Amino acid sequence: MQAQLIALDWGTTSLRAYKLGSNGQVLDQRSLASGIMHLPSAPRMIAGQSCADGFELAFDEACGDWLDAQPSLPVIACGMVGSAQGWREAAYCDTPANVANLGSSLQTVRSLRGIDVHIVPGVIQRSRLPNVMRGEETQVLGVLQNLPVMAGDNLLIGLPGSHSKWVEVVEGCITHFDTFMTGELFAVLSEHSILGRTQQRTPAFDGAAFDRGVQVALSVDGEIGPLSTLFSARSLGLTGELSATAQPDYLSGLLIGHELSALATVHRHRRHSAKLPSIILIGNAQLCARYQRALDTCGFPHVTLAEQATERGLWQLAVSAGLLGKTAPVQPD
Amino acid sequence: MQAQLIALDWGTTSLRAYKLGSNGQVLDQRSLASGIMHLPSAPRMIAGQSCADGFELAFDEACGDWLDAQPSLPVIACGMVGSAQGWREAAYCDTPANVANLGSSLQTVRSLRGIDVHIVPGVIQRSRLPNVMRGEETQVLGVLQNLPVMAGDNLLIGLPGSHSKWVEVVEGCITHFDTFMTGELFAVLSEHSILGRTQQRTPAFDGAAFDRGVQVALSVDGEIGPLSTLFSARSLGLTGELSATAQPDYLSGLLIGHELSALATVHRHRRHSAKLPSIILIGNAQLCARYQRALDTCGFPHVTLAEQATERGLWQLAVSAGLLGKTAPVQPD
Repeated sequence: MQAQLIALDWGTTSLRAYKLGSNGQVLDQRSLASGIMHLPSAPRMIAGQSCADGFELAFDEACGDWLDAQPSLPVIACGMVGSAQGWREAAYCDTPANVANLGSSLQTVRSLRGIDVHIVPGVIQRSRLPNVMRGEETQVLGVLQNLPVMAGDNLLIGLPGSHSKWVEVVEGCITHFDTFMTGELFAVLSEHSILGRTQQRTPAFDGAAFDRGVQVALSVDGEIGPLSTLFSARSLGLTGELSATAQPDYLSGLLIGHELSALATVHRHRRHSAKLPSIILIGNAQLCARYQRALDTCGFPHVTLAEQATERGLWQLAVSAGLLGKTAPVQPD
Repeated sequence: MQAQLIALDWGTTSLRAYKLGSNGQVLDQRSLASGIMHLPSAPRMIAGQSCADGFELAFDEACGDWLDAQPSLPVIACGMVGSAQGWREAAYCDTPANVANLGSSLQTVRSLRGIDVHIVPGVIQRSRLPNVMRGEETQVLGVLQNLPVMAGDNLLIGLPGSHSKWVEVVEGCITHFDTFMTGELFAVLSEHSILGRTQQRTPAFDGAAFDRGVQVALSVDGEIGPLSTLFSARSLGLTGELSATAQPDYLSGLLIGHELSALATVHRHRRHSAKLPSIILIGNAQLCARYQRALDTCGFPHVTLAEQATERGLWQLAVSAGLLGKTAPVQPD
């Protein structure tokens, strides 16, 4: 099958490239380590010119051969590639944001080989404490496309990660979202704080330690908040009640438990209802499994996992932007 | 005046030495950088022997000349010098703990020059989430000694620091305490997280930015908790609402505000009263000034600062342990 679109998920630490066929079917895909903070630097010939630009080099590695085969394929990209530190800044779109808003706001950068790369803008929520996302908006749109019409009313889309996002959607629009720095906090505490000194990391997931951390966050002892309960990851070790190998997953459960406990509280307030929303999770499978486990413990009634959210979102945005109509007629093989 | 006691406040990063006269009067004092994680290592002659032991070297630097002048002065020390990583481990005493309990539980290590160093144990609270302190117990006892008899009933003693301690006292006993990792969290976030990348540090304190952080923590926006509000230190910068130079003190205020908000909530619950306790703060003057400012904003009605808490506490413990009676008769000068 001939390709219709090259879709790039270009974040801080990685670059995923998809070759998509008709209806967005994935024909080929690749994952490179060339995130915008880890770009290649060795100069190379691109389109007959010597090139040392990291974005050009990464772009060529990711999909140069696909473009050699079909030189007029349209290219769309989302993620930190559109940030101020990216290839070309794509200014945030305000909430509410949907496929039409974002699709009509793509920023372009012309690559050395003459191909325009269309960059999806992030989304900004100008609340008293503003919130921003870049990349997650595309994943959310990819999920919404595949939802039953009525599913959105009591739905919350979760994107666990360094900075978890929890996104409310109404009729296909991103209307509100919250950020939690849970993942980054876990990383800096484990690597740079006193809590890391007694941790012993193992490859296996310690479900009991994780669940214990979640339970502490939800318990009466958790009411004092994470700034205080954090210390229990050390003090339970000092009293011999938490082994060194259990400490990382205990801390992970504790932080995720505090995140979800706060999330449940604010959503009950906002919806004036004790009923919690259904959840769709998008992201890394192992991390989503942790969140699914903790969401169950927190009483969220219905949790599902989304797949192929990014490539579906990029496809939808390309359709909306009319990029596919620009494809030159394909030469037969 | 002849000295009666050498008192050492020996923590992780510093060693403070006091030469105390009758009634605990401070005759001389010194501050060294020789905390237990920064001990000297260059071998030297001590008491006629070549010595490369870091604790011996630091001890000799801190008070060797005082002991040369009065070789039989008793020596007492508190802080991390009594931890598992210290000179000699002094096992924690359980709450409730007072001067008598702790004074009768001193651990001793005999130094190269033949002098016993008496080490104050820390205190452990064996609650579901255990809590420990080491050094702070001595400061609390030093403050209690100087309180009016009736002051303790609705009193909370605060020791801001890397790990803030909030200590409840009843009739001269440490009965309960909480720990908040606020100071260490501020440090690791500023040095190692994305929040630090946009911070620009200046020597001057930005009171308006600090107050704004406190207010956010106390506001309806703060109900989502610190794991989420933390991100505002970045997002307010992205929208141009918080300058790079204001970000450090905003983050400091935000974290301290969340700490004090949680503290107020749990104390109201525990005391079954809307009335907040009076506060005595012990510690670094600049940090205490921040806490005093934030405590006022949080509605704590009466906040005072303690002075000379450590040296007074060490004196009391030495008296209780009978160390002063052991002093050999002083030779006239």
